[in-house]
Amino acid sequence: MVSIEAPDIVVGRLPIYLRALTFMAEKGQEITSSQELSEKLGISSAQIRKDLSHFGEFGKQGTGYEITYLRDQLKRILHVERTWPVALVGYGDLGHALANYAGFAPKGFEIVAVFDNAPHKIGQQVAGKDVKDLSELPKVVREQNIRVAIIAVPSSAAQEAADMLVEAGIKALLNYAPINISVPSSIQVQYIDPAAHLQHMTYYL
Amino acid sequence: MVSIEAPDIVVGRLPIYLRALTFMAEKGQEITSSQELSEKLGISSAQIRKDLSHFGEFGKQGTGYEITYLRDQLKRILHVERTWPVALVGYGDLGHALANYAGFAPKGFEIVAVFDNAPHKIGQQVAGKDVKDLSELPKVVREQNIRVAIIAVPSSAAQEAADMLVEAGIKALLNYAPINISVPSSIQVQYIDPAAHLQHMTYYL
Repeated sequence: MVSIEAPDIVVGRLPIYLRALTFMAEKGQEITSSQELSEKLGISSAQIRKDLSHFGEFGKQGTGYEITYLRDQLKRILHVERTWPVALVGYGDLGHALANYAGFAPKGFEIVAVFDNAPHKIGQQVAGKDVKDLSELPKVVREQNIRVAIIAVPSSAAQEAADMLVEAGIKALLNYAPINISVPSSIQVQYIDPAAHLQHMTYYL
Repeated sequence: MVSIEAPDIVVGRLPIYLRALTFMAEKGQEITSSQELSEKLGISSAQIRKDLSHFGEFGKQGTGYEITYLRDQLKRILHVERTWPVALVGYGDLGHALANYAGFAPKGFEIVAVFDNAPHKIGQQVAGKDVKDLSELPKVVREQNIRVAIIAVPSSAAQEAADMLVEAGIKALLNYAPINISVPSSIQVQYIDPAAHLQHMTYYL
């Protein structure tokens, strides 16, 4: 197992491979190949083989990849064979949609706490949880040992939310606000940028 | 200009470069380097130079990239020097958040029509538009020459929405529902998959 120092760009493709493998497994498929994955994902088969080779030997020449095995190995490599508790900051329309989103649980995440600072939102129920006052965030993050958070506040409040989360001990931030946030280099940050996905497609139009 | 047959995976990184360059330009910065971009984006400088070389010669040895020039070239390559009209299907919490999202306009997109099939939503106003009945979609897409659409409906309705959009003439689909959708190979599809971004980060935790 040589998982040390895989380039970040390769790490970022593992969830894409995991998604495709999970989908195939759900359909009852047992074996796949880098060629088949390539056709489904628009990534060359050579790239897929090279990416996976950073983490071990998963396929056999001539027989391909055993889907559930490779899926389980990718889950382990990405540390999602467990479920991570997630804090959500911002209970507007987007926060509400995220709190009810069905796509987290199958991928190893559960939103366990929702925060906002608008008095009329505090105490509202969503997906079995109370919306809590932002001032409770440090205590809740500590008590529930939360290390992953989602920022779903307006752009003007995103940096402040990020600062508060980092201060509380969060190590990974997913930011929906369309601005760059500044955090210490030890903190992971990812952006949801729907316009970037649209630009990827308009290239072809 | 050799933009023919750049790998899709390279095309997918151009919006990331464009985002970083736009951010630098807004800060008043004039020149950058593949090294600086590498540090900001977690992509190796060799990869960045190789990616850009598919589309032309943008940098000078020893002086780096002129930010606004490279930004404008990337906009042109991605076809976002214009504004694309976008149809949004689904006016739940997520649809409402997307209709009000401030991140589309600066990147070349404008949601011009919002559709739902729930009678009580039809006619509601959002960001200067009426929510329209889904049955009007083919007519509106044709009349406004819309080729890009966003699917923000529940998983159970996403394939049907995709079929309807493709039938109406849409060429690029951004799907928020956490399921794979099937479309003809001539249609571009991208997924918003927040759990994949979280998995990318938990690799490091």
